[in-house]
Amino acid sequence: MTERFSGNVLRPIDGPEAKRPTMGEIGLNNFAPYLMNRVIARWNASLADDLKALDITTAKMRALAILSITPSVTINELSVFAVTEQSTMSRTLDSLEDQGFIRRQPRPDDMRVRDVTITAEGRAAFESLWPTMYDDFLKMFQGIDEEEYRTFVAVLHRILQNIRLHEV
Amino acid sequence: MTERFSGNVLRPIDGPEAKRPTMGEIGLNNFAPYLMNRVIARWNASLADDLKALDITTAKMRALAILSITPSVTINELSVFAVTEQSTMSRTLDSLEDQGFIRRQPRPDDMRVRDVTITAEGRAAFESLWPTMYDDFLKMFQGIDEEEYRTFVAVLHRILQNIRLHEV
Repeated sequence: MTERFSGNVLRPIDGPEAKRPTMGEIGLNNFAPYLMNRVIARWNASLADDLKALDITTAKMRALAILSITPSVTINELSVFAVTEQSTMSRTLDSLEDQGFIRRQPRPDDMRVRDVTITAEGRAAFESLWPTMYDDFLKMFQGIDEEEYRTFVAVLHRILQNIRLHEV
Repeated sequence: MTERFSGNVLRPIDGPEAKRPTMGEIGLNNFAPYLMNRVIARWNASLADDLKALDITTAKMRALAILSITPSVTINELSVFAVTEQSTMSRTLDSLEDQGFIRRQPRPDDMRVRDVTITAEGRAAFESLWPTMYDDFLKMFQGIDEEEYRTFVAVLHRILQNIRLHEV
């Protein structure tokens, strides 16, 4: 399963009769969605372990990470950015509010919307876990140079654009 | 949140005193694990929808995909490759066996291990869903050229190596 596929993985489809390469021709190891699933599952599991040692959940870390770099967001936006179900995010915010890490306030011009902001304590909490997270990230990308990293990130951005465009 | 980080995201750590860039300096949109989580969640959700229309689950699809290109694997290997919990994979295989898509046989030299193989019917089932999957994949990578794709895949391979090496 480790050979490289010599043909074009992304062969364009010219019409209903165009030939698609088979999964076997491409090979699992050239099929990016498979590799991404493997990588991200491992990253998430390993980070969750490390965060557990710091007594914080992945959902809390993600909420604090996003809030630490945005002035304010809604619960809906937060659950999209954090890739976390809205019900889970809602419970997570309850707990973060109890800990004094975030504040929720009704928006003055639309009382149905509540804006979430981070407190100084929340910011400090994120700063205390960031070194763990960043060092895991560095280990993950060890041996990859900045240019490869930029291409990697550019491809991910393009995919996110395609997803919005085509509603994949 | 869309600006590019001008510095080095992967700045090496020279020692405990070395300065790490902050999450805010890097920006969510330059932080690959965040982007990968967004992308893969969307890919999985959208593929699951399309597979539902073909009356098959993601776990079944993944098992058939892997089995269609390997002579035989154990349940343990299958659950790793398919990024699926072993208990879920076990139930998935029960159901695939009932459908006549796979066979499980004790290994002659070690009766505790059961090898899983795909049947002709299972192969046909995977072939019937592959066009849907491949076309979703093409849409996802639209506008990305083969060279970028190869770099992208090479980075993913390197990460998988790093994960094994460092037990991230």
